[in-house]
Order: sequence, then C-alpha cells, then structure tokens
Amino acid sequence: MPYVIDEKLVSDVKDSIREQNETFFRHLMDEMRPADLADLIEHLDPDERVFVFDLIEPEGAGEVLVEMEPPFQERLLEGLDDEHISEIVQELDSDDAADVVGDLPADRAKNIIEQLEDDVSGELEILLPYPEDTAGGIMALEFVAIRDNSTVQEAIETIRRMREEVKNVYYLFVVNTQGKLVGVISLKDLVLAEPMSTVRSIMNPEVISVRVDLDQEEVAQLVKKYNLVTIPVVDDQERLVGRITHDDIIDVIEEEADEDISRMAGVLNQEIAEESAVRITRARLPWLVGGLGGGILAAAVINQFETSLERVIALAFFFPVIMAMGGSTGTQAATVMVRGLATGDISLVNIGKRLRVEIQVALFNGVVCGILLGIIASIWLSDYGLGFIITISVVLIILISGFIGAAAPLVFRKFNIDPALATGPFVTTSNDILSLFIYLGLVTLFLRMTA
Amino acid sequence: MPYVIDEKLVSDVKDSIREQNETFFRHLMDEMRPADLADLIEHLDPDERVFVFDLIEPEGAGEVLVEMEPPFQERLLEGLDDEHISEIVQELDSDDAADVVGDLPADRAKNIIEQLEDDVSGELEILLPYPEDTAGGIMALEFVAIRDNSTVQEAIETIRRMREEVKNVYYLFVVNTQGKLVGVISLKDLVLAEPMSTVRSIMNPEVISVRVDLDQEEVAQLVKKYNLVTIPVVDDQERLVGRITHDDIIDVIEEEADEDISRMAGVLNQEIAEESAVRITRARLPWLVGGLGGGILAAAVINQFETSLERVIALAFFFPVIMAMGGSTGTQAATVMVRGLATGDISLVNIGKRLRVEIQVALFNGVVCGILLGIIASIWLSDYGLGFIITISVVLIILISGFIGAAAPLVFRKFNIDPALATGPFVTTSNDILSLFIYLGLVTLFLRMTA
Repeated sequence: MPYVIDEKLVSDVKDSIREQNETFFRHLMDEMRPADLADLIEHLDPDERVFVFDLIEPEGAGEVLVEMEPPFQERLLEGLDDEHISEIVQELDSDDAADVVGDLPADRAKNIIEQLEDDVSGELEILLPYPEDTAGGIMALEFVAIRDNSTVQEAIETIRRMREEVKNVYYLFVVNTQGKLVGVISLKDLVLAEPMSTVRSIMNPEVISVRVDLDQEEVAQLVKKYNLVTIPVVDDQERLVGRITHDDIIDVIEEEADEDISRMAGVLNQEIAEESAVRITRARLPWLVGGLGGGILAAAVINQFETSLERVIALAFFFPVIMAMGGSTGTQAATVMVRGLATGDISLVNIGKRLRVEIQVALFNGVVCGILLGIIASIWLSDYGLGFIITISVVLIILISGFIGAAAPLVFRKFNIDPALATGPFVTTSNDILSLFIYLGLVTLFLRMTA
Repeated sequence: MPYVIDEKLVSDVKDSIREQNETFFRHLMDEMRPADLADLIEHLDPDERVFVFDLIEPEGAGEVLVEMEPPFQERLLEGLDDEHISEIVQELDSDDAADVVGDLPADRAKNIIEQLEDDVSGELEILLPYPEDTAGGIMALEFVAIRDNSTVQEAIETIRRMREEVKNVYYLFVVNTQGKLVGVISLKDLVLAEPMSTVRSIMNPEVISVRVDLDQEEVAQLVKKYNLVTIPVVDDQERLVGRITHDDIIDVIEEEADEDISRMAGVLNQEIAEESAVRITRARLPWLVGGLGGGILAAAVINQFETSLERVIALAFFFPVIMAMGGSTGTQAATVMVRGLATGDISLVNIGKRLRVEIQVALFNGVVCGILLGIIASIWLSDYGLGFIITISVVLIILISGFIGAAAPLVFRKFNIDPALATGPFVTTSNDILSLFIYLGLVTLFLRMTA
C-alpha cells in the first residue's frame, strides 16, 4: 500500500537524523518504495536530504533520485561527489541516466561519463545529443526487438535473456534484416501463440511509431489518441532506435499542461518544488515589470483624456470595471485557444469556425454586461446619455478583446513563440490599454457633442 | 501510421457526402483507425456526422463514438435512435458503456438498458451507481483474475478463454478464496515461468490498489507516482471489483489540468470542442458579471477618495498600474498553489514553508516594482513625496496580494470549494479593490498631512 508522509513521520525522521539512528532508516527503507522515499526526502532540509540519501544502496538510490522533482534532484546532486553519481547512474535505465547527466554542468557530466562502464557511457553518447523535448530526448534504449523470421519460442528466449535489462515488457517490436520496424506483438498474443509459429504470422504490421526528432508534445498526443502503452521510436530510415513508455508520456502531458499554466500566469515551471526565493523572483519579476510597463502606457492614454476627467471626475470610478471587462474576456478567449492548440484539439482546419463562435460569444456577453453597466452608470451619474455611451463602449470592448484574445495565441504560434506567453502579459495589458482608450474616447466624443 | 486530417480530406469527405458516395467511405474506413475517424467526424457539420457515423458497422461504431470529445459525442447521440445506441453499447467495454449510457437523459438510458443483453445490462447496473469522478466511475470490469493456488498453465488458459473480452492484458490479478486481492503478476513473469509452478510462487504480493470510492484525481496521482500501467480497484473488504488502465489515467490527468485552467479563466471545461455559442456564453458570463460586480465595488472605493482625486487628477492615471501589480502578484501566487494542490506536490506538511517563500518573493518583487513606479511617478507628478508614498503603496500591495493569492486556494480547499475557482474572479477582484484602497488611502493621508 502507498506510504503516507505525514507530519509525525517527518518529525520522527528528523529526530532519527539528529540521533544518527541508522537502524531506524534501514527499517524504513525496507518498507518504502523509491517514490515514497523520494517524497520523504523532499520534505527534509538540504543537509538532512544528503544524510538520508547516502544511506540508500546505489541500485536503489538511482530509482529514488529519478522520482524526485527536478529542483530537489538538482540540489541533491550538487551535494554528491562525481564518483557517487557515477555509481548511481551506472544502475539507471538509459533514459533516466541521460536525464540526470544531461542536467549537470558540462564539466561534471564529462567527468562522470568517463567513470562509467563502456556500455552505459555508450548509451549516453547515443542519447545525450537529442534535444530534451523530442522523442529522442525521452526515449529509452531498453526494449525487446526480434527478427520477423524468429519463432515465438525464440522471442520468449530473447525476453528471458533481457529480463534484467528490460524490466517492463508489454510489447515486442519486430524488425527486418535491415533493422527496420515492421510490426509489433503484445505479450498477450505471444503467450497465447504456438511456440513454433513465426513472429511474422502473429505480429500486427500496423504499428504506430514516431520519428526520433518529433516534439514530445506531439508524441504525447499520438499516445493519447491511440491509447498506446508504449511507442517505438525510429530514425529517418525507419530503423528502430528506442521506445517511449506510458509513464514518460504521463510526465510529458502533465509537464506541458503545467508549462501552459505557468506561462499564462508568469510563474516558474514546477515552481512548487522550487525552494529558492531568488529563482522564483527571477521568474516572476519580468511579468510584473511587463505589467508595470503596460500600466504606464495606460497612464499615458488616460493622460490624453485629462480634460474629460476634469469635467466628470466620476469617469475614473469606472476604470476598474472597464478594464475587468476587457481583461477577463481576453483571458477567457486566449485560454481556450492556448489549450486547444496544446492538446491538438484545435487545428488550422477548424480555426475559422472557432473565431466565429468566439465573436458570437463576445457579442452576447458584451450586450449583457454593457446594458448592466449602462444602467448602473446612468443612475450613478444621473446621465442617461452617458450611460448609453458606456453600454456601447462595453459592447465594443468585449468584442475587440475577445477577438484579440483568440487571435493573439494564433499569431504567436505563427511566429514560433509559445502561445501560452500570449495569454499572460500580452493579452491582459493590451486589452487594458485598448479598453481604456475606447471608453475614454467614446465618452470624450459624447461630452464634446453635448457641450 | 497516423492519418492526417487536413482541409483537402475534409472537403473531399463533404463532397462525397453530397454525392452519397458510399464506396469512398468504405475505402476510407478500412484505412482509418477509430480515433482518426472520430477526429474526421468532429470536423464535419452535424448532419454530415450522422451520415458518416451511420455507415460504420456497430462494432466499430462504438470505438469511434468513445474516441470523440464529449460535446460531439453528446450531440451525435441526440441524433441516433435508442435501438441504434443499444447496438453500439452492446459492443463496448463496460467502462465506456457506462460513460455513454450515464451521460444520456434518464428515460433514454432506462430504455436503452432494457434493450441490452443481460450480461451487458448487468455490468451497467454495477457501474452506473458509482460517481463519475471516483475509481468506481472510471474502472472497467474486463480484467483477468486468477486464484492464488492456480498454476501458470491454468493462468494462461484463463487468458485464452477471456481473449475476446479482455483486449489488453499486461498484468494478472491474483485473488484468494474470498475474492480478496492478494497479488499481481506481469505477463512478462508469466511468460518466463515454468508452466507447472503456482501463481502464488511467482506473484508480487506488494500490490498497489485503490478503493472503489477514491477520487479519480488521487487515483491518477498514485498511478503517476508508482509508474503503473494498470491499477486494481477493490471494495471495502479488499475484494477485487475492477481495474483502471493507463489510458483512462492519461484522460484524468489531462481533464484535471484542463479543469484547473478552465476554472481559473472562467471558461467551459473542454470548451474547444463545444460548438454552441449559447453554452459557452452561459459558462463565461458569470465570471464577467462577477468581475463587473467587483468593478462596481472598486468604483465605490474610488468614490470615497473623490476629494483627493479632485486635488490631484493624475492619481487616476496610475489606477491601471496599481491594479496590475496586485492582480498579477495574486494570480502568480494562486496559480502555483492551485497546481501544487492538484498534483499533490503541496501538502499540509509543507504549506508553512511555501507561505514563507511566497512572502519573501513578494517582498523582493514589491521593492523592485515599488522603486521603479515611485521614480516614474516622482518625475511625472514632479512630487518626490508622492512618489515615495507610491513606492510604499506598491510594496504593501504586492505583499498583501501575494499572501491573499497563496492563502485563498487553501481557504477554499478547507471549505471544500475547488481551489481553482479562487484564482480567477476571487483573487483578481479582491486584489483590485484592496490595491486601490491601499494606494488611495496612503496617498490621501499624505495629501492631508502636506495640505
């Protein structure tokens, strides 16, 4: 059963560290899974983490390390020496080994690779050159491949030979003499097949694979779309080079969703696991300063209409509500577009339809909010004409903000900028400025006409 | 290989529908996988969808139906008669059947269940009572369970007997005489075992299972934490009642992330797949009206300081920037907290530490932004005293907004309201009002003192 990390356990652990009570930890480590231990270690102070981590055997230590959130992992690695890291990396699956070594500073990485045995360092030399967010960057080299002219019996012998190296096997990949991927067999079909039948006769030749340079987000979309457990990775000659498993895909999906959310709000990705206030500040401050710059532009816009403000000072009362209308509408439209682009649910084929829906919605919302605010303003200012102008402003503001919110992520995408960046500072700030301009512009026209 | 749905294909399909060219579709359906067909159908107009869907055989039709996004699925089902739906449901896996029937209006569901064969309607009677977002609501009844005293040979025979019913088998669940879950065996271990050895001797007794009433978000967290492909579901007496597979977990993870994002922005969940502007408006309007209400409150706050505004009209120029500082800070802090709570990365154990980090960050950001805005305002207004007061205001605003942003999701959670709802309207609006109050309050004090 999963282990519950509660305050009691954390405080017991802290006491045992103070008392250097190793027996307590031996007992605990027998009972806990690597993911639980990782979780527990994350709850400790940096020195305590190294103490506990040092007590774990090298085989187990690697599994604990890769289960930790990246910021904790990075911090812990800083506290270990290169030899210790090599020992751990030696025991890891190739994809995890590449992740750990790839995140280290270049000189440490080089030093550690030199201390590894040839088979492991060879794997790292294959994997490290692939960009982190591609199929090559997340694939592992531990997979079972068999020739298409093998028998079922031979396939089972291959699994037996590789049983230590490839821990989880759900599918076998079938290759031809050139090493090209030509089919796939589930272990279920293998179990039920006659031992002497050929692999070719029971394989599924309709195998879905990805090219090694495909973006990890697109890999995840394929795995999700076709409900795959594992997806083979091929090079540009269709030769099998690796495999990606469901757990890596789950990480990608959560990572991409978190990345979208983080960029929209302007926070650090996986910030929750970050302990350094300086790093968090460094991530958040640009968004605030961007907002500050936008706010100064908005101030300049208001400044242009100072005469109107002097005449009816109450116009300033409505700045917040005017900006809220533009800001919320823009964020809503942009959020849907950003997520639609990320999950693949929106494509070039249906963008036109989507923009039409967006404008209809803005029209509905604009009319409802416009009339509401118009009535309130009419009563407050005792001026029905001004109230009517405010209604018109809100309709226009919501229409234009909705359009900008929906279009900005598309334009950003066109220029290869992450659409999620559009939603945060860009849409909010530009809609703030535009909304104030429309509102003050129309009201000023009205005041001049009625002067 | 995956099928690419492009504008050319969609327009060919539309032409073929007009020409009632069934041969074209027979050919297409041979080539496309259910998920591709679902994707294609989503790109058509409502009438066209029913035309194409009607051409698919009942066995294949179900798989296409469940691959469609819920809003499209719902719309399509409205256009089919009960008999046709029963035919399709008959062929589905139990969890998919329960999802389809569970989403129908009660009278249609009842009518359809009556037309099903006894085995299928019996399964629905087991699954339908479970709430949709629990382990019971997403589990399937298609799994392979074997007694702990069976031999490996008998286990393989069980898989053979159920080969049609249970399409994907990666693990066998082991139960004792009382039906209690006592272990798990991977197909890999089964393939490599001696045919006459007992299941008990090769099973892993450390099996992770979930209770049938566990929230799906917590199920997903466990699957992710322990990198599982499939997780068995047990009742309150530890008896095996179902299984949840990796593809359902991927859906849950994406669904929960999308739900968070949607609630933060105030849009419909999975809105991208929704075509009805009325439904979209109904989801978004409350957020806008909430923002409007908040904006009116803000107007009332500003109204209280009318005298200060009359004295220095330029104070109104800085409303947008003041609100941007409070709003962005609050959103940043709240976003991190909401995602941390959702992914389980933040728990009661580390909340205190997180709040301290949040306040440190706010202090840094407040000082930087405060000094920046103070300098700009000093120059603009040619009043260094006022500039200094603005600096102090911004520091206070960012500190308080950061605290509110981080604390609001926790308070919401305490009262069992989704923390994601806190981030959108609540934090933004309350921070807008509070920020204006602090700014105008401090400035008014200063103006009175210097008057």
